[in-house]
Amino acid sequence: MLTATTEIRVRYAETDAMGVVHHGSYIPYLECGRIHLLDKLDLPYVEMEKNGFRLPVLAVNLRYRQPAFFDDRLAITVIMKEPPSVRFTLHYEVKRGNTLIATGSSEHAFVDSNGQPVRPPETFKKKTQIAWNIAEMTG
Amino acid sequence: MLTATTEIRVRYAETDAMGVVHHGSYIPYLECGRIHLLDKLDLPYVEMEKNGFRLPVLAVNLRYRQPAFFDDRLAITVIMKEPPSVRFTLHYEVKRGNTLIATGSSEHAFVDSNGQPVRPPETFKKKTQIAWNIAEMTG
Amino acid sequence: MLTATTEIRVRYAETDAMGVVHHGSYIPYLECGRIHLLDKLDLPYVEMEKNGFRLPVLAVNLRYRQPAFFDDRLAITVIMKEPPSVRFTLHYEVKRGNTLIATGSSEHAFVDSNGQPVRPPETFKKKTQIAWNIAEMTG
Amino acid sequence: MLTATTEIRVRYAETDAMGVVHHGSYIPYLECGRIHLLDKLDLPYVEMEKNGFRLPVLAVNLRYRQPAFFDDRLAITVIMKEPPSVRFTLHYEVKRGNTLIATGSSEHAFVDSNGQPVRPPETFKKKTQIAWNIAEMTG
Repeated sequence: MLTATTEIRVRYAETDAMGVVHHGSYIPYLECGRIHLLDKLDLPYVEMEKNGFRLPVLAVNLRYRQPAFFDDRLAITVIMKEPPSVRFTLHYEVKRGNTLIATGSSEHAFVDSNGQPVRPPETFKKKTQIAWNIAEMTG
Repeated sequence: MLTATTEIRVRYAETDAMGVVHHGSYIPYLECGRIHLLDKLDLPYVEMEKNGFRLPVLAVNLRYRQPAFFDDRLAITVIMKEPPSVRFTLHYEVKRGNTLIATGSSEHAFVDSNGQPVRPPETFKKKTQIAWNIAEMTG
Repeated sequence: MLTATTEIRVRYAETDAMGVVHHGSYIPYLECGRIHLLDKLDLPYVEMEKNGFRLPVLAVNLRYRQPAFFDDRLAITVIMKEPPSVRFTLHYEVKRGNTLIATGSSEHAFVDSNGQPVRPPETFKKKTQIAWNIAEMTG
Repeated sequence: MLTATTEIRVRYAETDAMGVVHHGSYIPYLECGRIHLLDKLDLPYVEMEKNGFRLPVLAVNLRYRQPAFFDDRLAITVIMKEPPSVRFTLHYEVKRGNTLIATGSSEHAFVDSNGQPVRPPETFKKKTQIAWNIAEMTG
C-alpha cells in the first residue's frame, strides 16, 4: 500500500451559501492529492503529459461526513491499495485534524493525446513497481 | 419512478487542458438537474431554503463514459426511483443527443439551518407522494 | 452599437459563504453573454476555434453594485460600442429585473492555435461589418 | 507601501481547453494573495468574519500578459499602496519566476453580516496603521 498526504487551505471561492465547502470543491482537492502522490513517486503528471500520456478520471465517488469551512487546513491522503495495472483505483481521505471530513475513490486509465486507451508509460510501471517493492520491505 | 430532464450548454470555463469538460464540472450539472426536478414537483429549492430547510449532498458518484466538449448541449436527466423518505438517492444520466456521456447518483437528507438532520418538510412529503401516485397511474 | 442579452440562472455552486454569488462566478456569466453575442452575429465561437482561431481575454474589469443570490435569473447584456478591429472591447451589464447587479468590460484579440496574434478571420470582419451597417440603418 | 507574496500551484481544474489557466481562475489566486496579506498583518480574515465583519469585493480588474499552465508555481504579490480608509484598493502581480503573467487590482469596503457598510474593525485600523508606521521606518 502506498500513501501520500498533502495539505490544502480552503479558499473562499470554494464555499457556498450553506456556509460550508461546496461538495464540488472536493474534486480539485482529490486532484491535488493525486498530483502529490505522483510527485512522491517521481512521476510528475506534467511530465507524463509532455510525453503524450494523459490520465483521465473514469469514475469518482465521494462521501461527505462532516462539513468543512473557509480557511480550514485539510489533509488530503491518497491511498493506492494495489499495484496499478492498465486501470487502477485510488482511495482518498480528507481530514481536518482528527476529524474525517470526506472519503472517496477515483478510477483511472492512461490514454494517448487523442484520447485512445494505451498501456501505462514504461517509467510509470517501473517506478510504481519499485515503490511497491520498497513498501513491502518496509511495511 | 419520477424523471425530469433539463439542458445545459457547456461553458468554456468548464473545460480543461485535455480539451474536454473537466470531470468536476459535472457536479454543477447534476445540481441543475436536481433543481429542475424540484421545480417540476413544485418544490423550488430556494423556497425550501427560505423555510429553513437545506438539502446537502451526502454522497456523489459519477462515471464518465464519453468526453463532452465546449458548447455541447447536454441533457441532464434525474431519476427518482423510490419515494423519498428521510434519506433518498437520485440517479442521473448526462447525454449529448443519443450519446451517453456520464451516469451518476447522489444521496441527500434534509437538515435545518444549523445543519442538524430533520424530517423532510411536510410540503415535500406531500408533493412527492402525490407525484408518485400520479406516476403509478400514468406509468 | 450592437447588443445582445442572454439569461443565466444562478447555480448553488456559484454562491459563497457570504450567501451571495461569488465575485469570480461573474466571469463565466460574461463568457455566456459573449458566446451569445457571437451566436447572434452568426459567428459561433466553436466554429472559429475549429478554424484555428482563438479569442482569449486580454483584460477584464468588473464592478459589483448589488449582490445576486442563488436561483436568481440574471440578464447578461453585452455591448459592442465600436466595430472590432484587431483588438476590441466589449461592455457588460448584469441585471436582475431592473436592478443593476454588475457592470464590466473585457478586451480581446484573435490568436492562432499556437497563441500567436493574428488578424481576425475574414468571416468575422465581414459579418460584424454587415451587422454594423444594419445597426446604423435601424438605430 | 505594504506587500506580501504567496505561492500557488496551478490545478488541472483551473485550466481550460486553450491549454492554459482560464482567465477566471485568477480571481481565487488574488483571493489567496489577499488572505495571505491579512495573515501577515495578524488580521486573519476568518477572525474578522467571526467578529461580524465582511470584506466584499467592490470591483476587480485583471490584465493577462502571458499565459500560465498546469502545474506552474505562481507567485501572487499583493500591494497596499495607501493606508486603508473606509474603502481601499489592493494591487496585484502574478509571476512565474521573472515572467509577469498578470496584473490587477481590487476594491474593498467592510460590511456587517447584513451587508450594510460599516467602518473597518478597530483592530484592522490599528494593525494596518502600525504596519504602515513600521514600513515608513524601514522603507
